[in-house]
Amino acid sequence: MNLILVDPHELAPDGTARLTGARAEHIRTTLKSSPGHALRVGLVDGPSGTATIAAVSADAVELVCDLSDPAPDRPAVDLLLALPRPKVLRRLWAQLAALGVGRVLLTNAERVERDYFDAHVLQPETYRPLLLEGLQQARDTRVPLVTIHKRFKVLVEDDLDAMCPQSCRFVAHPGGAAVSGVSPIAPRGSRVLLALGPEGGWNAFELELLESRGFSRVSLGPRTLRTDTACVALLTLVHAAIASAG
Amino acid sequence: MNLILVDPHELAPDGTARLTGARAEHIRTTLKSSPGHALRVGLVDGPSGTATIAAVSADAVELVCDLSDPAPDRPAVDLLLALPRPKVLRRLWAQLAALGVGRVLLTNAERVERDYFDAHVLQPETYRPLLLEGLQQARDTRVPLVTIHKRFKVLVEDDLDAMCPQSCRFVAHPGGAAVSGVSPIAPRGSRVLLALGPEGGWNAFELELLESRGFSRVSLGPRTLRTDTACVALLTLVHAAIASAG
Repeated sequence: MNLILVDPHELAPDGTARLTGARAEHIRTTLKSSPGHALRVGLVDGPSGTATIAAVSADAVELVCDLSDPAPDRPAVDLLLALPRPKVLRRLWAQLAALGVGRVLLTNAERVERDYFDAHVLQPETYRPLLLEGLQQARDTRVPLVTIHKRFKVLVEDDLDAMCPQSCRFVAHPGGAAVSGVSPIAPRGSRVLLALGPEGGWNAFELELLESRGFSRVSLGPRTLRTDTACVALLTLVHAAIASAG
Repeated sequence: MNLILVDPHELAPDGTARLTGARAEHIRTTLKSSPGHALRVGLVDGPSGTATIAAVSADAVELVCDLSDPAPDRPAVDLLLALPRPKVLRRLWAQLAALGVGRVLLTNAERVERDYFDAHVLQPETYRPLLLEGLQQARDTRVPLVTIHKRFKVLVEDDLDAMCPQSCRFVAHPGGAAVSGVSPIAPRGSRVLLALGPEGGWNAFELELLESRGFSRVSLGPRTLRTDTACVALLTLVHAAIASAG
């Protein structure tokens, strides 16, 4: 944890917060902090700053927070991801939050197994702690917005323009242009929406529908990657393209 | 598996091979292939081509291989990695092989826990199947060379020049130049050697020693990433830089 995230309901009006569980354990055992020490803290979806440790006990740590740095911008990249296997998605949550995504739209597709939608890893109780873990790793406070879409066509035709307005859209697909070609296309300040298909790829209908809604094909190169590796690679390249254009 | 890898000792002089275990199961159950079907196959560290299925039984699949495509070049990127936690390294093996690395040099560093060197995940019996899994995902046949170095100083001062001669060298460290600055530095055809430190970073001595041996600092950006995410991100950016320069 390079930043300790505090939930708004944990923060008292006087700026004090009492943490228990993994964060208290981390402060006590890993950081070996004691009263008087300062820590980097952030408010979930809010500002960040420093906290001074007021007290450490066996089960809790009390902090006095000074949250004077403004809330960061939401990351400029959104991800439209065909629902991967639960085991893969579980590995992905923290990494997505750490790399920086504004929204994660999980969608059905022909090559997505139907029972993936019943997985625990789609429950906010399961994925939210993993997202917070990634944010604490990357020193961010903005929790990615997560939505789940069982009807691909309805999502892409009816909902996507309202959810991701005026975005530059790319779909990862073998044979597209190299992702490094993204930077000149994305105007400064605009958001980028990336679509990544299931293992086995989008089918022809899905790909055509995405293209008809403004998605351009991009390629990750000649090597076929597993979904989780491909997600990290794609987000990395697009963030680098945005940074080099900025 | 986008390519089925056959070990040289499995290949008879007449081009036939008998596969059992996970590969046979994959051919039978996932690909649902039967006699007469053709598959993409490769010889470990050798050429690739197609195989025709001669027979399928409950525990084995018999192939007739035609390996007419030359062995691919070894990937042009090598990785000098401070030994990560066993759990993280286990997740990494297949991803490293899929992304493409020529060599993986695992090294000690001040912030590496000593007992990591005793982990099962450093045994070839454990990591070789994971490397092959990554190669079969990415359709490559070149198994990364893996070496383990318990003495960082000896490795960097005495052994590295012989193991990685004439390489362009970069060390990932906060505050370095953006990785996209790599492409103009790496001359066409030369190898790239990337160094990635432990969670918590290289110490000052280690960083200075690397810099004295030709490593330039590069940065992955303002977000601090977990070792496995950082490895994937770094390899992705460097492969993209090499491809765009080529």
